[in-house]
Amino acid sequence: MSDSIPRRQPIYQTLATRLESMVKDRSLRAGDRMPSVRHFATQQDVSVPTALQAYVTLETRGLIEARPKSGFYVRARQSDAVPAPQTLLGVPRITTFANTDPMASFLTDLSDPKLVPLGAAVPSSELLPGIRLARGMAAISRKLGAESVRYDIVPGSEKLRRELARRSLEWGCALKTDDFAVTNGATEAISIALRATCEPGDTVIVESPTYFGIARTLRELRLNALPIPTDSVTGIDLDMLESAVKKRRVAACVLIPNFHNPVGCLMPDEHKKRLVQMLASRGVAIIEDDIYGDLQHHGTRPRCLKAYDEDGSVILCGSYTKTLAPGYRVAYVAGGRWHERILALLMVSTLSGALLPTLAVADFLHSGGYDRYLRTLRQAFQCQVEQMREAVVESFPEGIRLSRPQGAFMLWCELPPRVDSMELYKQARSSGISIAPGPLFSPDGSFRNFIRINCGHPWNAQIERSVAVLGHLVQRMA
Amino acid sequence: MSDSIPRRQPIYQTLATRLESMVKDRSLRAGDRMPSVRHFATQQDVSVPTALQAYVTLETRGLIEARPKSGFYVRARQSDAVPAPQTLLGVPRITTFANTDPMASFLTDLSDPKLVPLGAAVPSSELLPGIRLARGMAAISRKLGAESVRYDIVPGSEKLRRELARRSLEWGCALKTDDFAVTNGATEAISIALRATCEPGDTVIVESPTYFGIARTLRELRLNALPIPTDSVTGIDLDMLESAVKKRRVAACVLIPNFHNPVGCLMPDEHKKRLVQMLASRGVAIIEDDIYGDLQHHGTRPRCLKAYDEDGSVILCGSYTKTLAPGYRVAYVAGGRWHERILALLMVSTLSGALLPTLAVADFLHSGGYDRYLRTLRQAFQCQVEQMREAVVESFPEGIRLSRPQGAFMLWCELPPRVDSMELYKQARSSGISIAPGPLFSPDGSFRNFIRINCGHPWNAQIERSVAVLGHLVQRMA
Repeated sequence: MSDSIPRRQPIYQTLATRLESMVKDRSLRAGDRMPSVRHFATQQDVSVPTALQAYVTLETRGLIEARPKSGFYVRARQSDAVPAPQTLLGVPRITTFANTDPMASFLTDLSDPKLVPLGAAVPSSELLPGIRLARGMAAISRKLGAESVRYDIVPGSEKLRRELARRSLEWGCALKTDDFAVTNGATEAISIALRATCEPGDTVIVESPTYFGIARTLRELRLNALPIPTDSVTGIDLDMLESAVKKRRVAACVLIPNFHNPVGCLMPDEHKKRLVQMLASRGVAIIEDDIYGDLQHHGTRPRCLKAYDEDGSVILCGSYTKTLAPGYRVAYVAGGRWHERILALLMVSTLSGALLPTLAVADFLHSGGYDRYLRTLRQAFQCQVEQMREAVVESFPEGIRLSRPQGAFMLWCELPPRVDSMELYKQARSSGISIAPGPLFSPDGSFRNFIRINCGHPWNAQIERSVAVLGHLVQRMA
Repeated sequence: MSDSIPRRQPIYQTLATRLESMVKDRSLRAGDRMPSVRHFATQQDVSVPTALQAYVTLETRGLIEARPKSGFYVRARQSDAVPAPQTLLGVPRITTFANTDPMASFLTDLSDPKLVPLGAAVPSSELLPGIRLARGMAAISRKLGAESVRYDIVPGSEKLRRELARRSLEWGCALKTDDFAVTNGATEAISIALRATCEPGDTVIVESPTYFGIARTLRELRLNALPIPTDSVTGIDLDMLESAVKKRRVAACVLIPNFHNPVGCLMPDEHKKRLVQMLASRGVAIIEDDIYGDLQHHGTRPRCLKAYDEDGSVILCGSYTKTLAPGYRVAYVAGGRWHERILALLMVSTLSGALLPTLAVADFLHSGGYDRYLRTLRQAFQCQVEQMREAVVESFPEGIRLSRPQGAFMLWCELPPRVDSMELYKQARSSGISIAPGPLFSPDGSFRNFIRINCGHPWNAQIERSVAVLGHLVQRMA
């Protein structure tokens, strides 16, 4: 037998593998009834015994099950049984940040390129259209010639802002070109929004957990944080939020309603509506971080809080850093009734964004390339999150809880109570693996037994091994 | 006679034109003795009568003069006799900015592309290497491939910072790679430097006049300005500065020691040394804006204040936005003893610069391309400033005063006392010409009869006509 003759796989195996991948990417979901064997045979143009053998193979692999007199069904997977992390209840308490940053060292090596990248919330650059964007940018600079060096002074490229206005319909809004300003990353948008709406010493409501960048910004601006628990399915607890704003003066509230970082939850529309009404009626500025809004795993693009804004109380911050190019820094703010003040602050903050990256993104949006590309990206993220959930359930001890993200590419994982995620972080790091320990996402050091896992990279053997190593470390500490 | 046969210029005229351009770009300066007619004939390999005829032509054009028994000399030009603008004396007074910006409307159309560009301090993009930089950027993105989208998180590109460290020797410093952070324009560098060193309500010394962006930043950060007169030759008045810091607590001092905007002066080294010692010994943070430092008209690159910094009291801010590409936003800060705090603020201000523009600039610096290009740019600016000085003297009424910039590309012009530059600005605008009225450069509304003229564009008929129109308007108002 010669090595050069490829071995042909039996047809039933090919079929089984195809079905398996449909189950894995959730085209077929737990509880779905499979087509009858006869029907499947006709569909695929194979014999009935071949179709049956394919189903039996899937059954052996634990992916479907035969139910008496009813046919084959997709089995609930191991990870489907895992509960979601718990909302931390208790009375919200104001946190005053000291002028030091105990997390700084964690943050700097969250994205250390020598480590397996389960730490920073950054998608694999393999998935991003870097080469297309760069080509587009080269074409734009050829077209502009010498003019390609010019300033793009605040409010920034009209071309990009016009695209944003058009897209705002998808977000449930109807914003105009002049409602937007271009910013250097959502970091600048949120920072400026806080500076426009708050004075040092003011109280700002944040979610618990929340993105650590928000906590850092509050600390540097000397604002106090009032963390309100965020449910891993429905988002911030509205009753606690209401009682908090009734009790004390709150200047602003910073929220990630769509595919929350780190939890991945999507706030239901009725919650969004109630939240905006509740805060707007009390004059609380609502700062909406929508950087993951384009990354739903199913269905349509979710609405923004801004969609329910009737009096300019919502400052919408968005970005193409998570969906297109982190290092292009193309982001935006729609400042509602603080827009003029935000423009003035942008003038003295950075004056202008980088023209060519901004135009490259505007072109990609305008050409329709972005929308086509997004479809692939969403599928990839959905699939990667599912694969990570499965792998974690397989390797980690029983009793853990896992978020079930409805979009984006992060997993929030509650470990057994005895596990100290800061210690886990250090041990993982020694094993060459980066993870984000829970306290990073807490303004007051809670979430000690939580970790966030980045699922932004296509599944591979190295990631698989790393999850097994993490599982082993957790087992030892539990 | 056919049109297609070009008419040949007589040799003496070609020679005269060549000599004229040497006088215009100051290769030959007022008072210089010309070579003897005989010697010149030998040098140029022409007959003595031809050489003589060239000299006589120049004499007719008013550029050289014959002195009895001594030969020909370059004549002092009209503009050489014009005095420099006056330093405003008087007791420095603190200015508290209101939370409004009366200058905002002026600023927005300072760079209106429909107007003749004598307003904003922006060089012509014809002079800048936009096409080369864009080509370089395209090559870098091809090399990086998918990785070209990645973050360039604070402190930013090591490649650029290494280049800056190497170049700091030219500035009289010896800074290390880690002494620098990359920023989004010098605007961000100065803004963050002020936030790192001052609290709202603190007093900051500024030059009078000074760049309006500094005044705006102070206003937005709710800092008080204490303006100290700046001489049009030697820079800020050190005695007044000393008495000011003796009298009250001053948190910081923002200065443009090299080719000051709008005045163009270069602070002498001994002044720099005295200033740094004086302020450092009192704990005043020195924020140095060095964005024009590479643009000397003669001699070597001037030293920075940072060269005299012994204890980290100087925060050096620089940029490649005026010399290479305004819209690339590639700038830097070396934060001295506030560097850690500055890094923390940059993390929450913008987190990262745009990677590709940063690397394109780093490459251009590294390759030596920047240094070769700078030689041409400096000559162009010097020549353009000279041409503008001549044209202004010709068209404007007697009694005006003109700065004699030692670098960069701006002219500061003191008009007769009755001229209101805000009114002149409006009239010029109606005639399609942009200029920058003096009060823009004053934290307290002074310099009412001053204007700043941008000389960043190669001389052309449109600019020549515009200066004539301005002269006419000034004549009418004087």
